[in-house]
Amino acid sequence: MASVVGVGTPDRFDDHCFIRACRGLPHERVPVWFMRQAGRSLPEYRAIRGTGTILDAIKNPDLSTEITLQPVRRYGVDAAILYSDIVVPAHAIGFGVTVTPGVGPEIEEPFRSAADLDRLRPLDPVVDTPYVLETVRQLVGELDVPLIGFAGAPFTVASYLIEGRPSRDYLNTKSLMLNDEHLWHSLMDRLADLAVASLTSQIDSGASAVQLFDSWAGALSAAQYQRYAAPHSQKVLSAIESTGVPRIHFGVNTGELLELIKGVGADVVGIDWRVQIDRARLRLGDTVALQGNLDPAAVIAGVDAAVSGTREVLALNAGHPGHIFNLGHGVLPSSDPDVLSEVVRVVHTEGAVGSADPT
Amino acid sequence: MASVVGVGTPDRFDDHCFIRACRGLPHERVPVWFMRQAGRSLPEYRAIRGTGTILDAIKNPDLSTEITLQPVRRYGVDAAILYSDIVVPAHAIGFGVTVTPGVGPEIEEPFRSAADLDRLRPLDPVVDTPYVLETVRQLVGELDVPLIGFAGAPFTVASYLIEGRPSRDYLNTKSLMLNDEHLWHSLMDRLADLAVASLTSQIDSGASAVQLFDSWAGALSAAQYQRYAAPHSQKVLSAIESTGVPRIHFGVNTGELLELIKGVGADVVGIDWRVQIDRARLRLGDTVALQGNLDPAAVIAGVDAAVSGTREVLALNAGHPGHIFNLGHGVLPSSDPDVLSEVVRVVHTEGAVGSADPT
Repeated sequence: MASVVGVGTPDRFDDHCFIRACRGLPHERVPVWFMRQAGRSLPEYRAIRGTGTILDAIKNPDLSTEITLQPVRRYGVDAAILYSDIVVPAHAIGFGVTVTPGVGPEIEEPFRSAADLDRLRPLDPVVDTPYVLETVRQLVGELDVPLIGFAGAPFTVASYLIEGRPSRDYLNTKSLMLNDEHLWHSLMDRLADLAVASLTSQIDSGASAVQLFDSWAGALSAAQYQRYAAPHSQKVLSAIESTGVPRIHFGVNTGELLELIKGVGADVVGIDWRVQIDRARLRLGDTVALQGNLDPAAVIAGVDAAVSGTREVLALNAGHPGHIFNLGHGVLPSSDPDVLSEVVRVVHTEGAVGSADPT
Repeated sequence: MASVVGVGTPDRFDDHCFIRACRGLPHERVPVWFMRQAGRSLPEYRAIRGTGTILDAIKNPDLSTEITLQPVRRYGVDAAILYSDIVVPAHAIGFGVTVTPGVGPEIEEPFRSAADLDRLRPLDPVVDTPYVLETVRQLVGELDVPLIGFAGAPFTVASYLIEGRPSRDYLNTKSLMLNDEHLWHSLMDRLADLAVASLTSQIDSGASAVQLFDSWAGALSAAQYQRYAAPHSQKVLSAIESTGVPRIHFGVNTGELLELIKGVGADVVGIDWRVQIDRARLRLGDTVALQGNLDPAAVIAGVDAAVSGTREVLALNAGHPGHIFNLGHGVLPSSDPDVLSEVVRVVHTEGAVGSADPT
C-alpha cells in the first residue's frame, strides 16, 4: 500500500467547486452529488454486489472502492461518498447489528438499560474498522473529486440501537429519552465518541469532507432536539472542526430545526424537498451553505418531472455560491440512472453561480 | 326518528369554549380533544368493538354513536369527533375499499388511468351513507359538547386510491401528479366533490365543526402543494364556508405549508409537534386559530413526560384564545388512557386564556 500521508488533506481539493461551494465561496459550476448515488439503483452495482450483507461488502475494501467509484464514473458527479453504513461503528465494537435486505439495521439485543452501556466500548478505527480506512485510502488514490466520509449522528444511531429496527414513531427511543435523561445522555455521549473516532479516522485517511447523518432527527420537536440531541451532535462536529474539512449535516423533516442544526456547527445544512431553499437561506443567513433538495420521487416520475424539479431548485437558489445540488433524501432503489444523468447534465449546464460575495 | 331540523346548527354551541377558540374569541377555559380519542386505546372500545372491520362498525349507528361517546365520558374532552374513516365516501360509492386491521385502507383495484374516473361517481349521502347521517343525528341528540364531522382532503384520499395501501414515499401518487396533470386534477376534482357532499351532509345533520384531514400533504413540497393540492382543498372548504361552522385543517409534516393551508380557507390550522405553536402563530398571524400539538410519543412515555409536554405547549401558547389543545397526531393505540385523563386535567386546570383580543 502506497503511503497516503498528506494525500487528501483539506488542501488537496481547496479549489474544487464542491469544497468551495461548501465554504460559500465563488466557483465555476454548481456541484452535484446524490445521497445513495452508489447502490441498488445501478445495474453495475447489482452486477458486482454479490449475495452477502451490506456489512460483508463494507468489509471488502476492493469491492467498496469499486462501488463508491461507480456513480462517479457514470454520472460525473462532483463528489464521491464512501460506501459504508451508519451502523458500522456499533457493529464493529460488537453491539450485535445486522442489516437485513429490504428492512434495514436490526439489533439482536436492543439497548434497554444502563447495563447496555457496557456494550458500547470506544471505537479504535485502526483495529476495529481497518477495512473502512483501507477503502478511504484506495479511493483517495483513485478519485479526482473529493471523497465525503460520514457517520450517523448520535440521535439517529440511538434510534436504531433502542428500537432494534427502523421505526415510524420512535416510541422506545423517546420513552427512554423523556424518562431517563441521565441514561439517555450517557448513551448519546458514547455514540458521539463513536462518531468522532470514525470521522476523525476517515479524515486522517484522506476524506475531504464529512456528512453527519441525523436522518431521523426530524421526528423530534425543536425543544426535544435542543435538549436531547443537539449537545451530542455539537460535540461530534466540534471535535473535527480543527481538521478544516467541511462538515455537512443532513436529516429529513428538519424544517423546524434548521437554526438549531446550524447551531451545532454544520458548515453545510442539508435540507429535504419540503423546505424551499430560498426560505432556508432566509432562516439561516449566509454563514452556512445549503445542500439539496430535489424530491427523490420526481426522479421516479421520470425525466421531465426530474428536470423540471431540478430547474425549480436552481431557480430558487438564484445563483448563490453556497449551494451543493443533491436530492432531498437518498436515491430510491427503483430510480432510473438515466434520469439522474440528465439531472447532473442540467445542473452542470444550466446551474449558474453568481458572483455575489456571501457575507 | 325524531326530526333534527335545526338541532346542531352553528348557533347551538356558539358560546362553547371549543367553538369560541376556533374563532379566536375569548372564552372560559382551554378546550381539548384528541385525534383518535375513540378507538383502540380504550378498553371500553375493545369491549364492544366486535370482530368486523371498521367499515362494518361505521355502518352500525348505535355502535358508532357509543364509540364516539366513550372518550367524551371518560376524559371530559370539549369536543366529540365522529367515529368514521376518511375512506368511507369512496367505499360507499363502490370504489372497492377495505380497511385491514394493522395495515389501514387497501384498494382492490388502485386508481391508475382515466378509465378509473368512472368508478368515482358523485356521493349521495342520504342514499350512500345513511348510517353516517344517522350516527351524527343520534350524537347530536346525546352530546353536550360540539360534534366534529370530518372528511379526507383530496390529496390524502388520492394517495390511498392510487397507492392502494398506506405508503411511505407516495411514488405512484407523485408520478401520476407530475406526469399527467390533467388526469390528476380530474381525479382531485371528484375527490373534492366527495368531501363536499360528505361534509355538507354531516353539517346538515348537526355537526358543529368539521376537520379536513390532509394527513399526508406534508409529503409535498410547497410548490407541489400549491399547484396540485391546494386548489382542491380550497374548493372543499369554500363550499362549506356559508354554513358558518369552523373548518379545521390537519396534516403532519406541514410546517413548510402553513401559510398555504391558511390560504385554502382553514379557520383552524392543526400543527404536529414539530412546529412550535408560537412560531406557527408568527407565520400565520391572528386570523386563524391553532390546534395541537403534544407529541403523541410523550403520552406513551408516561404521565410525567406527557404533563411536562402539555405544560410546554400551554406556555408556548401564552394564553392566546385561538388555541384548541390536542396531540400533534392521533392517539397511538398503545396509549394509557389514564395519561390522557391527566393531560385533560392539566389543560383544564392550568391552561389560562388571556383576554387579548385577537386582531
